[in-house]
Amino acid sequence: MSVPEILAAARTRRAMIATAESCTAGMIAATLTDPAGASDVFDCGFVTYSNAAKMRMLGVRRETLDTHGAVSEAVAHEMAQGALDRSQAALAVAVTGIAGPGGSEYKPEGRVCFALAGLASHVETVEFGAPGRSAVRHETVQHALALLLGALTQDGDQRGKVGRIP
Amino acid sequence: MSVPEILAAARTRRAMIATAESCTAGMIAATLTDPAGASDVFDCGFVTYSNAAKMRMLGVRRETLDTHGAVSEAVAHEMAQGALDRSQAALAVAVTGIAGPGGSEYKPEGRVCFALAGLASHVETVEFGAPGRSAVRHETVQHALALLLGALTQDGDQRGKVGRIP
Repeated sequence: MSVPEILAAARTRRAMIATAESCTAGMIAATLTDPAGASDVFDCGFVTYSNAAKMRMLGVRRETLDTHGAVSEAVAHEMAQGALDRSQAALAVAVTGIAGPGGSEYKPEGRVCFALAGLASHVETVEFGAPGRSAVRHETVQHALALLLGALTQDGDQRGKVGRIP
Repeated sequence: MSVPEILAAARTRRAMIATAESCTAGMIAATLTDPAGASDVFDCGFVTYSNAAKMRMLGVRRETLDTHGAVSEAVAHEMAQGALDRSQAALAVAVTGIAGPGGSEYKPEGRVCFALAGLASHVETVEFGAPGRSAVRHETVQHALALLLGALTQDGDQRGKVGRIP
């Protein structure tokens, strides 16, 4: 996934990006700012590792966490919307998942929920399996970047996917 | 720098950690959560890449930014204090710097300002020079981790350094 391509697409759309990350804990934001000069299109990132941080920093509702668990499309959706509402971004991406090792909340290792809010609304769950913690986190970053690029370019491959909300 | 050592020291101190990152944009938070099971001691991270995000998310004052510039010990101090105030953490680390390539604000490439707030108060400027953007960001992460470990263990090497505030 080409980060310069994402940044260029954001510039074309005049859209700033925000991130809300749980299991990747800042890796998406760090990757988006690998190239110099991203500051015109990358606004900010929220690393909400704990449930308390998800509620406090992003406005995720306790009821949503209690009902669906932290790793759920409903929580990913509220994280993305919270990041959008609390930033200058036009597009926010959120991820919450179980990087492992081992599952939790009766959910399998490698399950990651993604959400977009703003220019595109989208939620999706991907099961990465158990290739290892580092690999799950890396694949999660790559998938989040693909979602951002799809939303910013609205190419054929993404058009059908972007739009589903919980 | 051993992340498990930092996490173990935080557990011993029963101290949660928060991060506030500009030039590293989430890399410190991501590194702290490389090992599984960090959620009992890592609370949250603020990736405040833009000045607007520094003010909005961390309460950095516009006057401080205008007077000292984004890459300054004064701003690093306010970022760390802001992260502390807006989290459940007992110790916050903040970094703001010029990863390059090239300088800005009439400041040289490779200058990074660090701050701790909470268990230890500390500000410090390190000139990493111009080894390249990726190297500056990597060195910044390692230095921030060293500051965290020093504050959590209060070893002899750090005792003299931790305590200076702007």
